[in-house]
Amino acid sequence: MATTEATLEAPEQALAPEHVPHDKLVIMAWSGDLDKIWPTFILGTTGAAMGMETTIFFTFWGLFPLVRNDVHITGENWMQKMMSMMNRGGTEHLKLGKMNFVGAGPAMMKKLAEEHHVASPAELLEVARDLGVHLVPCQMTMDLLGLTKEDLIEGLEEPAGATSALLEARDAVTLFI
Amino acid sequence: MATTEATLEAPEQALAPEHVPHDKLVIMAWSGDLDKIWPTFILGTTGAAMGMETTIFFTFWGLFPLVRNDVHITGENWMQKMMSMMNRGGTEHLKLGKMNFVGAGPAMMKKLAEEHHVASPAELLEVARDLGVHLVPCQMTMDLLGLTKEDLIEGLEEPAGATSALLEARDAVTLFI
Amino acid sequence: MATTEATLEAPEQALAPEHVPHDKLVIMAWSGDLDKIWPTFILGTTGAAMGMETTIFFTFWGLFPLVRNDVHITGENWMQKMMSMMNRGGTEHLKLGKMNFVGAGPAMMKKLAEEHHVASPAELLEVARDLGVHLVPCQMTMDLLGLTKEDLIEGLEEPAGATSALLEARDAVTLFI
Repeated sequence: MATTEATLEAPEQALAPEHVPHDKLVIMAWSGDLDKIWPTFILGTTGAAMGMETTIFFTFWGLFPLVRNDVHITGENWMQKMMSMMNRGGTEHLKLGKMNFVGAGPAMMKKLAEEHHVASPAELLEVARDLGVHLVPCQMTMDLLGLTKEDLIEGLEEPAGATSALLEARDAVTLFI
Repeated sequence: MATTEATLEAPEQALAPEHVPHDKLVIMAWSGDLDKIWPTFILGTTGAAMGMETTIFFTFWGLFPLVRNDVHITGENWMQKMMSMMNRGGTEHLKLGKMNFVGAGPAMMKKLAEEHHVASPAELLEVARDLGVHLVPCQMTMDLLGLTKEDLIEGLEEPAGATSALLEARDAVTLFI
Repeated sequence: MATTEATLEAPEQALAPEHVPHDKLVIMAWSGDLDKIWPTFILGTTGAAMGMETTIFFTFWGLFPLVRNDVHITGENWMQKMMSMMNRGGTEHLKLGKMNFVGAGPAMMKKLAEEHHVASPAELLEVARDLGVHLVPCQMTMDLLGLTKEDLIEGLEEPAGATSALLEARDAVTLFI
């Protein structure tokens, strides 16, 4: 009986069992490198502009670009402080994952992007917020690194964990970047 | 009314508009770095705890953490042996993908994790096995590196290849980490 | 009739709406490293051989392996030329993401692959084209790096952007490598 009802309600499923396209996009932004943050924000803002409900979970190194550019050192104990010193946060302090050349690589990359009218990470972050992209920091990473809400930029959603990320991912295009 | 119009324009969308959420999780664990193995195991165990059927395919560098901690050198020829020496396997010998600092980075990370009650990779591996996560080593990588079943930890499933991984991925949330 | 038969064979599908398996595979090939290009091509060709409609979007560093092996320097201005010199394109000039050892790592890896009859990236690229894998270069990256169609190998599709990639990804298994 249930079968008949289902058939009446949704006959097209039996006729052409097409996969229903996802209208959600979930990015797990693990890397904080300039060359990974760029695709993260470009894909995130593009998805949102296309009408996909878009969520970016920032975890591990991916949390550093969300640190306010005017915050120098974060953390409560010496280990956390040392890690923040070695890897200063903020969109203005991103490094390339390869060919960094003590900062020359990112400078060149940014110059090239400017010349070709490709938005900077800081601009794309702004666009993402304007387009309603959900920007969610990972609670566990914040605890590990001793990051507080005050250390992070405005406009983020409540910190969440792996369970929230996977719940969102269940019916979304999901990228681990 | 809007519904009726939509139905006329695209009836299948109005009848079955929802994407059926995935209840499977597939992780292709390519990296053996501590900072990637952590999210691999955290997402894997979280997915399994949420009731998702979870499979982790360990390939390339991702296979090294599955080497038994008491196995020093693996491989049959000098190239394979040299690679295992430069990149010793086992969950106790993982390095960070960045900020490794000759081992100081991983030590700090592990200390921070301990203080914040975040489980270690070895503990998470144990939890994964208890939760029934399918841990599958990549056959081709084992061949390439000269790894035998005896080199690897207990509780793994039969080695498999890209075809098996993609077959699992076809109806799963899939992450390449 | 087909509907009735299907219902008889698999009634649980109608009762509990199962996720329809994807028959498409989309890979966003961000990395140009030998150890990432390998899984990119192995998964891409395996997916195509399994009958999945497969598309690989080559973006950022991932574009370099598509540069013709006989092209030495690409780009129009000194920055683009310098980047192409530091990171020469072509499948014959790929480096490992880790354990590169000034070229010894890739040489060993290629030797091991040869001994175990694992196809090289160049061979897999050939197979991919034969199997009808859609190979799509990222337009924005080409602009950034000053790459022209003449710099790239034959058999690629028209350059495209993030919107095309996400449109394909909406009903596909999607991997960011």
